[in-house]
Amino acid sequence: MCQLLGMNCNVPTDIQFSFRGFRQRSGITGEHGDGFGIGFFEGRGCRVFLDRQAACQSPVAQLLDHYAIKSLNVIAHIRKATQGEVKLENCHPFQRELWGEYWLFAHNGDLKNLPAGFGQGHYYRAVGDTDSEQAFCHLLERLRQRFTQAPDVAAMFPVVAEWAAELAQHGTFNFMLSNGRWLITHCSSKLSYLIRQAPFHTAHLLDEDVEIDFSTVTTPADRVAVIATEPLTDNEAWTPILPGQLLLFEAGEVRLSHLPEKMPAPTTMQRED
Amino acid sequence: MCQLLGMNCNVPTDIQFSFRGFRQRSGITGEHGDGFGIGFFEGRGCRVFLDRQAACQSPVAQLLDHYAIKSLNVIAHIRKATQGEVKLENCHPFQRELWGEYWLFAHNGDLKNLPAGFGQGHYYRAVGDTDSEQAFCHLLERLRQRFTQAPDVAAMFPVVAEWAAELAQHGTFNFMLSNGRWLITHCSSKLSYLIRQAPFHTAHLLDEDVEIDFSTVTTPADRVAVIATEPLTDNEAWTPILPGQLLLFEAGEVRLSHLPEKMPAPTTMQRED
Repeated sequence: MCQLLGMNCNVPTDIQFSFRGFRQRSGITGEHGDGFGIGFFEGRGCRVFLDRQAACQSPVAQLLDHYAIKSLNVIAHIRKATQGEVKLENCHPFQRELWGEYWLFAHNGDLKNLPAGFGQGHYYRAVGDTDSEQAFCHLLERLRQRFTQAPDVAAMFPVVAEWAAELAQHGTFNFMLSNGRWLITHCSSKLSYLIRQAPFHTAHLLDEDVEIDFSTVTTPADRVAVIATEPLTDNEAWTPILPGQLLLFEAGEVRLSHLPEKMPAPTTMQRED
Repeated sequence: MCQLLGMNCNVPTDIQFSFRGFRQRSGITGEHGDGFGIGFFEGRGCRVFLDRQAACQSPVAQLLDHYAIKSLNVIAHIRKATQGEVKLENCHPFQRELWGEYWLFAHNGDLKNLPAGFGQGHYYRAVGDTDSEQAFCHLLERLRQRFTQAPDVAAMFPVVAEWAAELAQHGTFNFMLSNGRWLITHCSSKLSYLIRQAPFHTAHLLDEDVEIDFSTVTTPADRVAVIATEPLTDNEAWTPILPGQLLLFEAGEVRLSHLPEKMPAPTTMQRED
């Protein structure tokens, strides 16, 4: 399996504190050492740093220790390979363009018994070998087939919820998806979040003896949501996301939430081409 | 204007020597300081390092000084903004997926009087403001419309030559395009290349007093093509590419070349949607 880290804010914020703890799990406090990736949205632009090396050793990850990139939406991933070899094309997050915007996706879990040609659509095709990239291409394909232009997020959210639930019938499907304006998370087994806002306090990492007093580096209007497979700090209240729950974070808060009353029955997935 | 650097090899090779000289031109020996980018293909994967900062100062560029990434195809770009602000979404190279492969594109020049909706196609839409990204999306759109699956490169090359010539009617259109297997260059005003192969010699940079004896870091079978807006070394024979000429480099040598007998008359470009 893998681990996920996401951030969604109302002002551009750097993720250095959270990423510092997170990357310990790629070989020091965890064993997710089969490559890593982190993607930052900056304006309409997006840049993704990938490496096949473990995040705790990678020079690319070390760069991010001293280069503070401020972003409204960040998705990071440390990989423990289950499907697909340890190769660059299998590192998350994956990136595509949809409706004139960049989209990022990262997945923790394992999808099984996917139909032939899954993730090989008319508009989007997977490049690597992972079920994760195939699921991303499948979701984008269905969005592009359903909506020619970018829909209102309130119209899009329920269909993503429906398709995520369908895919989750194939296995574990914790994921993060962002277009730079909002960040969607789906929990299938394990995911937690917290929202930091005024009054800010000191936070202490779980994976390394490091703390930061956020009141010294924020303004009272700042609001930051941090979402992770497992809590990153040991003195803050993290909220577990429920299995089956889809959340949409915008400007550092939960804007939309969907929780099916009961898990849907297995369905035959729509082929995308 | 901007400057371009490309590399195409028969064995994975690092570009540190060439990039070291190239990035001097982003503020020390040249004034191309409005952001930079460099993209590396590794297997089927691809990673692009971008920064709005000048390559001569950027921590991202500094990382590449001590982190040798070996690749068969590399495209780098230092920007002096002509169209589009200095923003991340306007940094080259641009990346998209076509036929289940990643493609990179970078452009030096300036295209004018492009039709309304240019670069906003059915399959590919530009995210930023540059004529360059629009031209990339336009080329991919036409390739995707023409060929449902990846064609043989011999079938694809003449149509790219035709479309490149059409676009070059709108201004200066030096570009590099790669899918990780080959690298296409189009010269509209200025571009040169050289091929390093056995017997290897010492090369000395033009922009900095640095030299390398390639015979100590290569095997006799290695072959590396380096393509740049202006020659990077002062003791090697660089071949100027002719205005209007399209070249396809594969395994470190020129595999295909197209040079129109005369420049085509201006045409009305096909709309892509």
